[in-house]
Amino acid sequence: MSEEKENSQFQLTDTLLEQVELLIETQNDKELKSVMDEFHYADIAEILDELNLEQAMYVIKLLDSETTADILMELDEDNREKVLKNLSAKEIAEEVEELDTDDAADIIAELPEERQQAVIDQIEDEAHKAEITELLTYDDDVAGGLMAKELVKVYETWTVAGCLRRIRGQAKDVKRVHSIYVVDKKDRLIGRLSLKDLIVAKSEQKIADIYISNVDYVNVNEDAEEVARIMAKYDLEAIPVIESDDNKVLLGRITIDDIVDVLKEEADKDYQMAAGITSDVEADDSIIQLTKARLPWLFLGLVGGVGAFLIMEGFHEAFSKYTVLFFFTPLIAAMAGNVGVQSSAIIVQGLANDDVKGSINSRLLKEMLLAALNGLILALFLFVFVWIAQGEANTALAVSTSLVVVIIVAGLIGTFVPLFLDKRGIDPAIATGPFITTSNDIFGILIYFSIAKLILGI
Amino acid sequence: MSEEKENSQFQLTDTLLEQVELLIETQNDKELKSVMDEFHYADIAEILDELNLEQAMYVIKLLDSETTADILMELDEDNREKVLKNLSAKEIAEEVEELDTDDAADIIAELPEERQQAVIDQIEDEAHKAEITELLTYDDDVAGGLMAKELVKVYETWTVAGCLRRIRGQAKDVKRVHSIYVVDKKDRLIGRLSLKDLIVAKSEQKIADIYISNVDYVNVNEDAEEVARIMAKYDLEAIPVIESDDNKVLLGRITIDDIVDVLKEEADKDYQMAAGITSDVEADDSIIQLTKARLPWLFLGLVGGVGAFLIMEGFHEAFSKYTVLFFFTPLIAAMAGNVGVQSSAIIVQGLANDDVKGSINSRLLKEMLLAALNGLILALFLFVFVWIAQGEANTALAVSTSLVVVIIVAGLIGTFVPLFLDKRGIDPAIATGPFITTSNDIFGILIYFSIAKLILGI
Repeated sequence: MSEEKENSQFQLTDTLLEQVELLIETQNDKELKSVMDEFHYADIAEILDELNLEQAMYVIKLLDSETTADILMELDEDNREKVLKNLSAKEIAEEVEELDTDDAADIIAELPEERQQAVIDQIEDEAHKAEITELLTYDDDVAGGLMAKELVKVYETWTVAGCLRRIRGQAKDVKRVHSIYVVDKKDRLIGRLSLKDLIVAKSEQKIADIYISNVDYVNVNEDAEEVARIMAKYDLEAIPVIESDDNKVLLGRITIDDIVDVLKEEADKDYQMAAGITSDVEADDSIIQLTKARLPWLFLGLVGGVGAFLIMEGFHEAFSKYTVLFFFTPLIAAMAGNVGVQSSAIIVQGLANDDVKGSINSRLLKEMLLAALNGLILALFLFVFVWIAQGEANTALAVSTSLVVVIIVAGLIGTFVPLFLDKRGIDPAIATGPFITTSNDIFGILIYFSIAKLILGI
Repeated sequence: MSEEKENSQFQLTDTLLEQVELLIETQNDKELKSVMDEFHYADIAEILDELNLEQAMYVIKLLDSETTADILMELDEDNREKVLKNLSAKEIAEEVEELDTDDAADIIAELPEERQQAVIDQIEDEAHKAEITELLTYDDDVAGGLMAKELVKVYETWTVAGCLRRIRGQAKDVKRVHSIYVVDKKDRLIGRLSLKDLIVAKSEQKIADIYISNVDYVNVNEDAEEVARIMAKYDLEAIPVIESDDNKVLLGRITIDDIVDVLKEEADKDYQMAAGITSDVEADDSIIQLTKARLPWLFLGLVGGVGAFLIMEGFHEAFSKYTVLFFFTPLIAAMAGNVGVQSSAIIVQGLANDDVKGSINSRLLKEMLLAALNGLILALFLFVFVWIAQGEANTALAVSTSLVVVIIVAGLIGTFVPLFLDKRGIDPAIATGPFITTSNDIFGILIYFSIAKLILGI
């Protein structure tokens, strides 16, 4: 029996943390090591994230590099950065030797540039070093930045028996064998096989006779989000990466766990943008980090508020007899903001899921009809309320007519802006949240007062 | 060579759609079939989603049930419902026979209750029927609702050679062999093996000597989101499902592709809630469906706006000399809303990622300090602006002091509400979006006027 760790039941309790801290304080290495040995590396990382740097370093120095390499990958990014600062280039190289090439390259890429080469120089395994150096040449938002070099590759000329023999060798370096990639003599991808296909085949058969020729693949420069979309759509657990469509040399493979991370990061980023938070902060970050992420968006809101103030002041004199109109500005602004956020969110999500079809014009027309319908229903309620509250049909008409127009314009802006940004190659998600609410606040109030002025004949 | 389809390069163009529509219209079955045969089932589903029901039915009736079963699973839910309505119980049963048990159960669960039994009765394979019937007993938000019955299971007493022989039999029903589960004679899960472990082992070895005893698993009643969290955290591609912690009988297994779907749905739902859209609509849904999803939240905003109106009217007389104060209400309301959304989004995301630690009080204290810091910086700018614009320090002081207090209160509400809902077992995501902006608008304006009244001594 091998020694992998059970974990489904792991719970990080205060008691456990205190126990670990006590063991570190009393330098009870033997007991500490035996406690840690009970846990999965992802759980140890969760514990270390809660300790201070000195305590975390103590545990890392205690455990063997095979475990600590995996722990490093699971640490919170901020904490990993601190830990790496406290390790020598030689120590980092030892960790890196234990990791798959994709994780190894990720760790090195996180280091300050001047340390990267120092760490690479210390890697002893020349093949591993060359592979990591290659992976470092790719951006982290393309297929090349996600792929690992570890894969199982067979030549079409081999027999099933020969294959199984050689796979026994290659597979030692590969944690999980998803697919076996079949290449021609120039290492160009021509097909695939599953381990299952291989073990159900007869041992004297040739690979050429049993492989599946139609194989999914992505180009090494394909966008990471597009890779995620393809893998999710076709339910793939791994996808091979080739050099280019003309020259299908097999360069690496991307596995589904990396895609789960891409999807999570993407979703988190969009969610934070919609909430007006510059991405990449967590509830546990420092007040300074959180302020940096939040303040710019609030400042945008402040500028918008000042804009609204100036508009209202501009209409002040004209409306001196109708002060009551000012009391509806929060309502108009809120509705403009809400409609804008709704329509932009639907477009942003549709773009992300690749199901926004048809022209921009047809989208705008649909949103206009939708906003008009919603606006009319809401305006009817508002008209009745204002009429009863103010006993004056003209004011009621002015406010509720404005509401319909404001809702339509807000819906159109919310639909147009993300579509426009997307066409320009800019992430449409920035169009949601404070950006759309602020601009819609101003437009909304301006439209409201203009229409009210017109209807009331001031 | 087998006949699976290549797809990475698929693009749904208008030309392709027109070509397909023409082939359907002219009933050119041979050509239509050969065009469809070139595509992956996920791509055919994308094409069918763009056709009208009659055209889609034509294609479905034309293709064999092995392909159409997979296509059905990939169709947009609304379209699948329509297609299923047009198929007889016998036809649906034929599709279901081709699917894995988890997908088969999902399809049947989507049918109106009165049709479910009719379809089940038509399933010919008795073992498949029994398994599907079992799966239908689980809710779709627990592990049982995600799992499939297809898995490869070996007894600890078998030898490696015997194992490989029997796996050749079992594996026919299993699309991808992730892990081989090892059970004792009472079918209780005791460990696992990878196919790789098996082929690198010597053929005369006993399973009992080579299996990995510490195996991750989840209880059949475990929450689906928790299963997703566990699989993402531990990078698992499949996880076995057991009956209960006391009686670890192996019931099924969940694969990572189902988890990718859970994660995507969860992210989409949270995003839509934050944007004030009742979940489960898409850009391509009808105007009526979109109105149903959007109008209730807008109505909430309308009620909030009416509330703000009433507050402002209440302060009308007191502020007759300071009408200028009313012009800052959009600013105050916007800031209260923005801060509330920011703080609630950070908590909601932290709760989803399970990294919100510590007590509610410590969270509130942190948010209070953060909001105070942000509020002071913003208030300083506002103070200077109002002073210059109005030439009056008192008004400037009243507006900017209120801003600080409003931002702090908005941050506290945004932090408290999701934490409170989470403790009560309610999805905290509903606290974001229109809910928090509307309540913060009202609180913000009320606080603003009260403080202004106090400072200006009215």
